[in-house]
Amino acid sequence: MAPVVRGFRFSAVSAGIRKGGRPDVALAAADRPVTVAGVFTRNLVRAAPVLLATDRVQRGVARAVLVNAGCANACTGQAGLVAARASTGAVAALLGAEPETVLPASTGVIGTVLPHERIADKARELVERLRPDGANDFAEAILTTDRWTKVSTAEVTAPGGTATVLGIGKGAGMIHPDVGPPHATMLVFLFTDAAVPREELERALARACDTTFNACTVDGDTSTNDTVLAFASGDSGVSATAVELAPAFFSVCDTIARSMIADGEGASHVAEIWVSGLSGEEAARQVARTVATSLLVKTALFGRDANWGRLLAAAGRAGVPFDPERAAIRVGDVELVRDGVSLGPEAEQRAAEVLAQPSYRIELVLGPGTGRARYLTSDLGHGYVDVNAGYRS
Amino acid sequence: MAPVVRGFRFSAVSAGIRKGGRPDVALAAADRPVTVAGVFTRNLVRAAPVLLATDRVQRGVARAVLVNAGCANACTGQAGLVAARASTGAVAALLGAEPETVLPASTGVIGTVLPHERIADKARELVERLRPDGANDFAEAILTTDRWTKVSTAEVTAPGGTATVLGIGKGAGMIHPDVGPPHATMLVFLFTDAAVPREELERALARACDTTFNACTVDGDTSTNDTVLAFASGDSGVSATAVELAPAFFSVCDTIARSMIADGEGASHVAEIWVSGLSGEEAARQVARTVATSLLVKTALFGRDANWGRLLAAAGRAGVPFDPERAAIRVGDVELVRDGVSLGPEAEQRAAEVLAQPSYRIELVLGPGTGRARYLTSDLGHGYVDVNAGYRS
Repeated sequence: MAPVVRGFRFSAVSAGIRKGGRPDVALAAADRPVTVAGVFTRNLVRAAPVLLATDRVQRGVARAVLVNAGCANACTGQAGLVAARASTGAVAALLGAEPETVLPASTGVIGTVLPHERIADKARELVERLRPDGANDFAEAILTTDRWTKVSTAEVTAPGGTATVLGIGKGAGMIHPDVGPPHATMLVFLFTDAAVPREELERALARACDTTFNACTVDGDTSTNDTVLAFASGDSGVSATAVELAPAFFSVCDTIARSMIADGEGASHVAEIWVSGLSGEEAARQVARTVATSLLVKTALFGRDANWGRLLAAAGRAGVPFDPERAAIRVGDVELVRDGVSLGPEAEQRAAEVLAQPSYRIELVLGPGTGRARYLTSDLGHGYVDVNAGYRS
Repeated sequence: MAPVVRGFRFSAVSAGIRKGGRPDVALAAADRPVTVAGVFTRNLVRAAPVLLATDRVQRGVARAVLVNAGCANACTGQAGLVAARASTGAVAALLGAEPETVLPASTGVIGTVLPHERIADKARELVERLRPDGANDFAEAILTTDRWTKVSTAEVTAPGGTATVLGIGKGAGMIHPDVGPPHATMLVFLFTDAAVPREELERALARACDTTFNACTVDGDTSTNDTVLAFASGDSGVSATAVELAPAFFSVCDTIARSMIADGEGASHVAEIWVSGLSGEEAARQVARTVATSLLVKTALFGRDANWGRLLAAAGRAGVPFDPERAAIRVGDVELVRDGVSLGPEAEQRAAEVLAQPSYRIELVLGPGTGRARYLTSDLGHGYVDVNAGYRS
């Protein structure tokens, strides 16, 4: 059964932007203007829809988000901005909404201007199809190289009662999000029927992104189009603060982040890299990020090889001081390294068995400090090369 | 014909460290103690031979370098240090040299202690085989996943006459050197018969490494064992300063760096990434490094895809300010991007033809500044995954 969140409707159509006639344009619309917050890629190179959405989200109020797959509308200059304005304008007119309250988001090939006429031609169909239970259609239409849709829901518990959070995401490559106010081709949309003041919505969104999307990687490349938007309709009649929203936002974002990594181009394993024992969280995060993005680590994981030397070598080049001779490494429940050296072939064999599982945890304990951080990553194999050596052809 | 440099002799034997009975231990010995300078990996995790050589090179004088392939002797604790001392000690005794004047260098699998008895057993054979024209045997024995040997020579022109520089290197993976005083599984050994004071030799070596080895990458992983050593015998009777040595050192190091990148695991192309127009050299270097290590860029190069959007997106996440709408990109002689947008399908087609060549230059002009830097990189394809998913098995 499709998830529902009061105050929002969803639809999708095929506009011929993506090859093969698959649905490629999606619309999520609120019944009336609602509170909105957004975080966007911190890449200097930002796509036209990101520039436009960054500007429009400043109003704190929005009516809809219009998303297309197949064309990122990035590196397209003024023509890209014109196209993003035209497509959102066509939808706004049919919704009877102000143009600035429709936010654009795009994903797909860089360097091609969005064929906005194709979207305008389908705008009426898109608006007519809007349904409270249309979230799965929306989720399907925004996919690019993804193998599956990413939809998650969670409940918000607040003093006045409970509300719902619905999250819909996409992303399988160019995944190494770095999103933050005021600036994420991961696209994630959160919808809640809680009533949330704008500043609270912004705080809850920033906090959830930092510990989930900003701590996961497929290939270390930060996209020009990453966008995370949160909409709050208030239609549940329940008010919620950032703190009250936090667990539900974290749950939905974490589920979507894990699903993106599992769906990582060519990936067959999700590894949760935990680094602890350092002086602070930022130091731990830097080491976790270096290990999670190491090609030698990611190919060893593809080969199910408990190659602790590569783990330790990657940690050692992160620019964070620690004593390698005091380092310990655990893979799942297996203690693999103690005091910087291997516990032997048997431990390596048992660790290799853990690495055969679809998801597992690798923990590097690098000292006595309290700094601790987590990073999600995938293994890297032939599938990644296949997808990316021929993506445009 | 094998290159010769006065004052040095070379040899190699099979000691059963690498599989298949191939030569795996190499020795280069000076006829008497000579001036030495060294730079080593800046990875926090440093192999036993690196620790020992870092210490021994402080004397400024050395007699020999003993190198093995097949075992990195890294992450091996005290046992690794004992093994490195024992193997160099056995060779020193036979050379009649002080033990501290024989420097160790190792490359191969991390986490296994060097089987020093096997080297000791072959030490006499190794010393007896020393020959002035043995450089090619030396070069062969230090290889691991390399497909070919890396040997280069250049002439030093100084007021007193000419001298010779011979460089021998190895490395095809875990290549993203970051070497510097006082701390480089790239191994490179430079031998010159110029007479060079220690400080001048150190300066010449540091300068050559910075513009060649420290500006090249296969996989972004900095090894635990990277080592570059330079020996000067003075046997040509010609004295040379750092400035006089610089062109020959650069030539030899640049040739070896290019050969390593061309030999990059699974690589079929060498791309010279030039970034210019930024505020300073360090900013340009940071952008060049980010582009050169981008997986999306490297897989696009494998696919011979003139994917300028990925080039620009990688530059945009380097943390260096520039105006993407003023960016220009050239691939070989083809102008591909001007003012941040593509010059069209014809330009992309011609650029793709350049990318079919074994080596080419990609230039990103990102502004009006004078900062400029170069980084060498390889494409990344299935071969890399094959080599690294099963390296230890």
